[in-house]
Amino acid sequence: MSNMNGAESLVRTLVASKVDVCFTNPGTSEMHFVAALDKVDGMRAILGLFEGAVTGMADGYGRMAEKPACTLLHLGPGLANGLANLHNAKRAQTPIVNIVGDHATYHAQYDAPLTSDIQGFARPVSGWIHSSPSPKTVAADGARAVQASMSAPGQIATLILPADTAWLESDGPAAALPINGPSPVSQVAIDTTAKALKSGKKAAIIIRGAALKKRGLIAAGRIAAATGARIMCDTFAPRVERGAGLVMVERIPYFAEQIVETFAAIEELILVCTKPPVSFFAYPGKASWCTPETAAIHYLAQGHEDGVQALEALADALGAPKDPIHVAPLKLSDLPKGKLDQFSAGAIIAHYLPEGAIISDEAATSGLGSAIATATAKPHDHLSLTGGAIGQGLPLATGAAVACPDRKVVCLHGDGGAMYTLQSLWTQAREKLDVVNIIFANNSYAILNIELMRVGAENPGPKALSMLDLHNPELNWVHLGQGMGVESVRVTTAEEFADAYVSALKAKGPRLIEVML
Amino acid sequence: MSNMNGAESLVRTLVASKVDVCFTNPGTSEMHFVAALDKVDGMRAILGLFEGAVTGMADGYGRMAEKPACTLLHLGPGLANGLANLHNAKRAQTPIVNIVGDHATYHAQYDAPLTSDIQGFARPVSGWIHSSPSPKTVAADGARAVQASMSAPGQIATLILPADTAWLESDGPAAALPINGPSPVSQVAIDTTAKALKSGKKAAIIIRGAALKKRGLIAAGRIAAATGARIMCDTFAPRVERGAGLVMVERIPYFAEQIVETFAAIEELILVCTKPPVSFFAYPGKASWCTPETAAIHYLAQGHEDGVQALEALADALGAPKDPIHVAPLKLSDLPKGKLDQFSAGAIIAHYLPEGAIISDEAATSGLGSAIATATAKPHDHLSLTGGAIGQGLPLATGAAVACPDRKVVCLHGDGGAMYTLQSLWTQAREKLDVVNIIFANNSYAILNIELMRVGAENPGPKALSMLDLHNPELNWVHLGQGMGVESVRVTTAEEFADAYVSALKAKGPRLIEVML
Repeated sequence: MSNMNGAESLVRTLVASKVDVCFTNPGTSEMHFVAALDKVDGMRAILGLFEGAVTGMADGYGRMAEKPACTLLHLGPGLANGLANLHNAKRAQTPIVNIVGDHATYHAQYDAPLTSDIQGFARPVSGWIHSSPSPKTVAADGARAVQASMSAPGQIATLILPADTAWLESDGPAAALPINGPSPVSQVAIDTTAKALKSGKKAAIIIRGAALKKRGLIAAGRIAAATGARIMCDTFAPRVERGAGLVMVERIPYFAEQIVETFAAIEELILVCTKPPVSFFAYPGKASWCTPETAAIHYLAQGHEDGVQALEALADALGAPKDPIHVAPLKLSDLPKGKLDQFSAGAIIAHYLPEGAIISDEAATSGLGSAIATATAKPHDHLSLTGGAIGQGLPLATGAAVACPDRKVVCLHGDGGAMYTLQSLWTQAREKLDVVNIIFANNSYAILNIELMRVGAENPGPKALSMLDLHNPELNWVHLGQGMGVESVRVTTAEEFADAYVSALKAKGPRLIEVML
Repeated sequence: MSNMNGAESLVRTLVASKVDVCFTNPGTSEMHFVAALDKVDGMRAILGLFEGAVTGMADGYGRMAEKPACTLLHLGPGLANGLANLHNAKRAQTPIVNIVGDHATYHAQYDAPLTSDIQGFARPVSGWIHSSPSPKTVAADGARAVQASMSAPGQIATLILPADTAWLESDGPAAALPINGPSPVSQVAIDTTAKALKSGKKAAIIIRGAALKKRGLIAAGRIAAATGARIMCDTFAPRVERGAGLVMVERIPYFAEQIVETFAAIEELILVCTKPPVSFFAYPGKASWCTPETAAIHYLAQGHEDGVQALEALADALGAPKDPIHVAPLKLSDLPKGKLDQFSAGAIIAHYLPEGAIISDEAATSGLGSAIATATAKPHDHLSLTGGAIGQGLPLATGAAVACPDRKVVCLHGDGGAMYTLQSLWTQAREKLDVVNIIFANNSYAILNIELMRVGAENPGPKALSMLDLHNPELNWVHLGQGMGVESVRVTTAEEFADAYVSALKAKGPRLIEVML
């Protein structure tokens, strides 16, 4: 007898396992977990007004904290609302302990209205799923979920919590389980890759995961110095350290034919915790597989292996110089005047970007300007839309701000995608999170105007074009932001944008700037 | 050779099958379907800015049109965003042809970022799932999907459309397939039920589906006249015809102990296209199963059977009088003054409710006032939240307005639930739909304050209570509505509400009224 219900035993176990932030939108079946938040010190609970916001926040938190937050979602439909951003988190290999309340074990048989196949909903996004059968096991199940979520490189562990396992008497909390970090890479892989790079053939190294932070990048820059290999990352890398003082990484372009051209001359393709590049979508007559048939492909490190160690060992095996090449200089963009477009906005964003900023980037077709300009801005982290499920940027920024309260978060977002999870703004206001939300308002699903042509849908008519157009009626992001308690402003010139941006960077708490394109 | 791609063959087939409204948020893989909209006459395409809005609209349309709309969603994540309202639609047994674009058949192997298990996401909500393997079959698959969606009582048919089956040459459209209506009930069921009702024991008849419209209700009222049986419907019936001139139906209450009390004396329970009543959630020490153990249960009609025919045959078998009892009189509420609460608001809503109005009701804890007052208002349809997945009301109202352009739609919504799919307001503005959106702003998940106590979570602390409270910051629905192009007003007294409501009813197009509670 522990005098402690299952919910409390679970919360105590999570805190003991260093999971101390819970992003949630709870319902009746989660009320005991919610009540336990006051009985246990050390768990911060953050409310989102929609589960797509909740799971996106957990992703942003996990990418920056490098440990899981937990979610707390309400049965199948609550989980379902969070699935799209869990898909993005899965693609980002973010550790998340995804807790879903369920009907009491004995209640499922009655097929009450909220009953659904929770495991079915969870399976496509989860690396680990378990439904707790008893209040006696829920604590141990929680410890296993944390451990599973941190299984390298990171994954979503879904723990389903029937209401009676939360309210019945438990046996008390469980101890934290050991976290197994990434595996070391084999010497064979290092030797093989070193040999390939010494061949003098044209080589590219594509890196993903933790090796896109400073230490891995230095090793990559040393390898480049020794071999001339190109240092690259996926189009949608979960997290990259960029800016002055960091080794620059070439990002693989988006469109199939650009990828093919990028890799056309490559003879040796080295992969570090990633896969060969493929087209995001299929297009009639265009390549899906984008590596030349003649290139040799080498997996230096698989996803669960230690990419940093692999790159450092490879640099040493190559006798690479101590200092990397491709180190970005600090070169602040000039401040443009007049016309406001993604390039003038990008220059201004980069010019004032504070050191240690975190950029959550779902700017889509409006993102090139800032991507170019921030390459030589002060050092920062860049988080991208990993799974193509739009509506990630605002919650990702929100979660990153929770993980890193001393860093400024800048969210770059297209208006179409931002509408998906705009509820995130309310959480930013409630938690007074330090996020500057920049909405690029082109009143369009602009990418689809490009894609419509690219897929060969010729001469689109007015109905088709109207499905891509958001002008009728025009969204007003100042109203939307203010409706959720975020100070918001609309800007139409470069000068207005610079003023609003500088003001937002100086302030504490969230701001929204609607950039009229 | 048809000189027609798969997408066009599908759209032509849908139109030939009388599916002529498409609710959509398309992406790249759906561009050929979108382009086909201009090549084929007769398909209306309606854009939603989030898929949860899109699927909720399809539910509202299907409940009122009694035939399916199609959706058009973008791969797994687009479907995932729509799942919660598809769960509600599944529980409402609404016919929907749920079309989900997918990667080209040959592209799936590359595991590009948007790749996911679409069938896995679809399975928990779909009665029928099929992925088209070829442009030659997609038209026939579409015809089968329409037929499946209309399989009585109605279900979600998910058709997955790989991009190459849309863009490659088809064999042309397919003919519509026959729709099988509900099956006739067996004479045995009628005889057994008649015998039970003649026993003189206390009886209740619970009705769901099409029998909750005028014809079925008349038969039920005749049975009540002959036998004294209570005429009831589920707490969350998909659609009920109510108001003056219609037979009144007792709605089963929400909480377990209320249901138990309601049925405590019942000896004969007759079910028409529904199941015995159960508690919505499990609660410690409270019943889940709410029918007395001593009651006999009779299935007069199963879900796929014809409830109207069953009730009419039963009335005749009982020799019931021609005229029903329990016919609601027209009794308009007095117009209250001063304090604005759900009861004064409900009285005003009922007083001015136009004949033929459609009420989309997700008012939750604020709904009792209008439910009482509208019972004797002018005749109207009432649509409720069938699956407990909040965020149904606004899109349901939107879809109902598309289905019934000559009827006024009144949406009653709690503020917490309305935040889930607020993007629906933009579609109302774009399509100039005749919807009066009434948001009951209590800045709270008020039901959870009740449920927290009911589940036995004693003495909730400040963290727990803050998870149920939406005051910090306060939402401003006038800003939110205006941000999406809907004329919006906040009211704080009964007089202000009456003025705003009358003005909204007179106007064409959407309005929003924020009722401050």
